[in-house]
Amino acid sequence: MKDVQSEPDHRNIDLAKVGIKGIRYPMNVLDKANKAQATVATVNMYVHLPHKFKGTHMSRFVEVLNDYCADLNLKTFFEMLDRIKKKLDAPAANLEISFPYFIKKKAPVSGVSSMMEYTCKYMGEINGDERKLYIGVKVPVCTLCPCSKEISTQGAHNQRGLVSVTALFEEFFWIEELVGIIESSASSGVFALLKREDEKFITEQAYNRPMFAEDVVREVTDKLKKDPRFTRFTVEAENFESIHNHSAYAYTEVAPRQS
Amino acid sequence: MKDVQSEPDHRNIDLAKVGIKGIRYPMNVLDKANKAQATVATVNMYVHLPHKFKGTHMSRFVEVLNDYCADLNLKTFFEMLDRIKKKLDAPAANLEISFPYFIKKKAPVSGVSSMMEYTCKYMGEINGDERKLYIGVKVPVCTLCPCSKEISTQGAHNQRGLVSVTALFEEFFWIEELVGIIESSASSGVFALLKREDEKFITEQAYNRPMFAEDVVREVTDKLKKDPRFTRFTVEAENFESIHNHSAYAYTEVAPRQS
Amino acid sequence: MKDVQSEPDHRNIDLAKVGIKGIRYPMNVLDKANKAQATVATVNMYVHLPHKFKGTHMSRFVEVLNDYCADLNLKTFFEMLDRIKKKLDAPAANLEISFPYFIKKKAPVSGVSSMMEYTCKYMGEINGDERKLYIGVKVPVCTLCPCSKEISTQGAHNQRGLVSVTALFEEFFWIEELVGIIESSASSGVFALLKREDEKFITEQAYNRPMFAEDVVREVTDKLKKDPRFTRFTVEAENFESIHNHSAYAYTEVAPRQS
Amino acid sequence: MKDVQSEPDHRNIDLAKVGIKGIRYPMNVLDKANKAQATVATVNMYVHLPHKFKGTHMSRFVEVLNDYCADLNLKTFFEMLDRIKKKLDAPAANLEISFPYFIKKKAPVSGVSSMMEYTCKYMGEINGDERKLYIGVKVPVCTLCPCSKEISTQGAHNQRGLVSVTALFEEFFWIEELVGIIESSASSGVFALLKREDEKFITEQAYNRPMFAEDVVREVTDKLKKDPRFTRFTVEAENFESIHNHSAYAYTEVAPRQS
Repeated sequence: MKDVQSEPDHRNIDLAKVGIKGIRYPMNVLDKANKAQATVATVNMYVHLPHKFKGTHMSRFVEVLNDYCADLNLKTFFEMLDRIKKKLDAPAANLEISFPYFIKKKAPVSGVSSMMEYTCKYMGEINGDERKLYIGVKVPVCTLCPCSKEISTQGAHNQRGLVSVTALFEEFFWIEELVGIIESSASSGVFALLKREDEKFITEQAYNRPMFAEDVVREVTDKLKKDPRFTRFTVEAENFESIHNHSAYAYTEVAPRQS
Repeated sequence: MKDVQSEPDHRNIDLAKVGIKGIRYPMNVLDKANKAQATVATVNMYVHLPHKFKGTHMSRFVEVLNDYCADLNLKTFFEMLDRIKKKLDAPAANLEISFPYFIKKKAPVSGVSSMMEYTCKYMGEINGDERKLYIGVKVPVCTLCPCSKEISTQGAHNQRGLVSVTALFEEFFWIEELVGIIESSASSGVFALLKREDEKFITEQAYNRPMFAEDVVREVTDKLKKDPRFTRFTVEAENFESIHNHSAYAYTEVAPRQS
Repeated sequence: MKDVQSEPDHRNIDLAKVGIKGIRYPMNVLDKANKAQATVATVNMYVHLPHKFKGTHMSRFVEVLNDYCADLNLKTFFEMLDRIKKKLDAPAANLEISFPYFIKKKAPVSGVSSMMEYTCKYMGEINGDERKLYIGVKVPVCTLCPCSKEISTQGAHNQRGLVSVTALFEEFFWIEELVGIIESSASSGVFALLKREDEKFITEQAYNRPMFAEDVVREVTDKLKKDPRFTRFTVEAENFESIHNHSAYAYTEVAPRQS
Repeated sequence: MKDVQSEPDHRNIDLAKVGIKGIRYPMNVLDKANKAQATVATVNMYVHLPHKFKGTHMSRFVEVLNDYCADLNLKTFFEMLDRIKKKLDAPAANLEISFPYFIKKKAPVSGVSSMMEYTCKYMGEINGDERKLYIGVKVPVCTLCPCSKEISTQGAHNQRGLVSVTALFEEFFWIEELVGIIESSASSGVFALLKREDEKFITEQAYNRPMFAEDVVREVTDKLKKDPRFTRFTVEAENFESIHNHSAYAYTEVAPRQS
C-alpha cells in the first residue's frame, strides 16, 4: 500500500508541531503516598516535521502511548519522548500529558479524610540533545477579599479560586510539595469533606488571612524563589468573584537572571 | 437528483425528534428597555419523523432560522414552529433557542451602570393543535452560608451561585421580571461594575441575608407561587462553594394541582 | 455547635432534590474483562427534603461516597442509595455517577489493540420501597451520509458522531454489550489505533454502509427492542457534520406498552 | 474609605498581569459588509503591577469597557489600551477581546445565503511606547484524508476541522480576507445552509482536494508568506478525525528573518 505521508512536499515549509491532540487514555502515574495512581489522561503528542515530508504517521504516536501508559513517571516520560522522536524519525518531539490527580487530605480539626482532585500536567520537549520538562498543577483554594473586609462592618466576600503553577523540572520535587506551597498561600485550602468544626475553622482562618489574587501569586512566588529547585516558573491566580460574574486575575513569571 | 430522505423506511420506528442541533446564529430578541437586543443564539430545531420516512431535510430548518433571526419574540417564536412543522410536513415540531441576554444594572449605592449577562432560553413545542412555550433564565447570584455564619466568631463563607428558573409561558411576563424575582431571593445580586461603596453595601447585605441553596430555591418558589401567571415551573440553585471544589445544589418543581 | 440545617422551615415547600453536585472522585468500577477498572467519576448525590427542614447535611453525602468509591458495581450502587437515604433521614434519594470507561479494542484487519474511551453513567433513585437504575453510555462512531453518496459521482461526506443510549436496568447486561450494539449500528466504529490496512477497511466499510443519524437511532432501537432485557430506553445520535458547523440529530424513546 | 489596593507591598515582586478575566459584554465590532456588527465578547484586561503596590483597582477596567463597547475597531482598541494604562497608572497594559463574528456566505451552486460563525480575537499590548496588536480567527473547514483516498477502492474519510490563524497586525487587513485565505486552503469550506446541489458540489470538491492537517497549514502559510502585510503569524489545523476519537494536528509559526 502506498505510503502517502512519506511522499515529498515541495512547499518548503517546516512544521513546528505535527501529531495527535486530545487523545484520552488510562494511565498509571507516580504517587507519593501509594507509589502509583490510576487516572485518565488527556494527551498531545507532536514531532517537528521537516519541509521535505508530506505528513507524519499518526498511528505510531498511539503505539508509543500504548507501551507506556501502564507506568508514567519522570524517567518513562523522557523514554516516551525519545521513542516518539526515533519512531517518527524526527529532529524534535513534544509531549503533553494532563490528568486529574487525587491526594488524600485531612480536614483541619476533625481529621476526617477525603480525596481532593488537582489537575496536573507534564509538558516536555526533546530537541536534538536538549531535553526539557515542565510540571504544572492547578489547585483550587479559597480567597477572602482584603478590601471587602476592611471597608465592611461585618463579613467579607470570599470565593473559590484556582491557582496554577508551572515549573521547569530540573531537580526532583513532588507534586504534593507544590500543592502544599500553594494551599498555604491562600486564605484557606479547599476540601471535599468538612465537618462542622472544620467549617468553623476554615471560615475563621480565611477571615484572618484576607488575600487578593495578587497576594496569592506573590506568596507562592516568594516561596518558590527561596527554594533552589525552582529556577523557572509561572504563577497564576484566578478568583471566581462572589460579587461579580467574572474573575479577578494575577500572573507572573520568574526566569533565572542572565549574567 | 434523488431525494434519499423521502424514501420509505421499513423498520417501523417513529423518531420523536429529528433535526439540527447546536447551530449558532445572530439574532435580535425582544428587550424591555430598548425594544430589541442583538445577540448570538444557539439553536436546536426538531420535528417528529413518522416511521415511514427515511430522513428529514436538514436544510429547511436553516431556511426557517434565516427568515426569523432578525426579529425573535413570542409571536414569531410560534410562527417559526408553525413554519417548521409545515415545511417539514411533520406532525410535531420542537424549537429551543438559548442566548446571552444583557440588562443594564445600577450599582446599589454609587448608581454606576453596567451590563449584566443572563443566559435565556425559549423552549417550545407544537404538537397537532397543542402549543407550549417554556422560558428559562439563569441568574448568577451571591450566597452566604447560614451555618458558617452561625458557628464562626467572624465572617462566613460565601460564593457565586447560579439560579435557574424555567416557567411555562401562558400569560405575558418579562425576562426582566424573572431576573428581579431571583436576584431579590439570594444573599445578594452580582454586578459587572461596583465601586468601593457598593462593595461595602453588598458585603454587609450578604452577611445579613445568609441563605443556603435550599433557601434560595424556596424564596423564588414562594414568590412565583403567589403570582398567578406562573402555573408550572422549576427552580434550581447551584452554589460554587468557596470551601469545597464541588457545588451545593437544590431543586424543585411546581405543577398545577390536578383536581 | 448549633445545627442550623435541622432548624424548622415555615415556607411549606418540599424540595425534590437537595445535595451535592459535580464532585469528582477516584472510583473502581466493574469491568467485564478485568473485574475492576480504576476511573475518575463525576458524582451528583441528592435527597428529597421535606418542607419542615431548613437544609440538608452536605458532608454526609461525601462520607457515603468515601465508603463506596473503592468498589462500584450494581449491588453497591443500591447500597449507596440506601445509605444516603438513611443517613440523611430522607424519604427518597438520587445518585448519578458518570465516568470515562475504557475497553480494549482490536483494529479490524491488523488486530492491533488499543484502549477506547466511552462515557458511562449510572443514574438511580430510591423512593420509599421503589428503586430504579438507568445505565447510560455514549459511543463515538463514524457515519457516512447516504444522500451525499447517492448524489455525488465520487466520495461522500462522513464524520464523527456520538450515539447515546440510556436504558432502565432490570435484568443484567454489560456496558460492553450496549457498546457492541451501538458500534455495529453505525457506518463504522471509531478506534484509537489503526494501521493503514485498517484505515482502508474502515473507509470502505463506511462507504458501503451509509447511514443518517435517523438510521443509526433506528438500527439501535430495532436491536434493543428485540432483546427482552431492554424494556425502557432512549436512543440519541448526533453527527458533527463535516460540511456544516452544526450537528444533525435524531432521538427516540421506547417505553413498555401499557395494557 | 481606606484604599487597600494602594497600600505598599514589601515582597518586592512585580506582577506581569493583574486585572479581570472572562467578563462578557455586548459589543459592536467593525464589519466589512455592514460597517458594524453586534456581538457578545469575552474580555480579559490586565495591567503590569509594580512591586510596590498591593493590588489593582478592578472596577476601573470595567469602566473602560463600558465606555468603548459601543464601537470596537482598530483605532478604539488602542484607545482602550491607552485608557487602561493611564487610568490604572501602569507601565504596561494588555487587552484580549474574543467574539463570535458572522459573515454572510453563499452556497457554491444554489447561491442561497446563510450566516456563518467565526471566532475572532484581538490581542493587544501597550508597553511604554511600544504597541502591538495580534488578530486571530478560527475557521471551521472540511478536510478529506489523502491517505484514506489513496488506499481505498471507494470513498475517503473526511471530517470537520478547525483552522486557527493569529497574525501581527501592522498593515490593514480585513478578517474577511483571512477567512477567505483559510477556506480556500482546505478540502472544502463549511456552510450553515446547503441545498442538495451544493452538497453534491462540496462532496466532489473535497474528494478532489484531499488534504492532511499538515497540507492545510502549509497552504495557508504559503499564501500568507506571499502577502507582505503578514510578517509574523501562526497557523494551526486540528482535524476532528471521523475514524478516531482524537484529533490530527499541525502547527507552525513564521517570524520575520533577522538580519
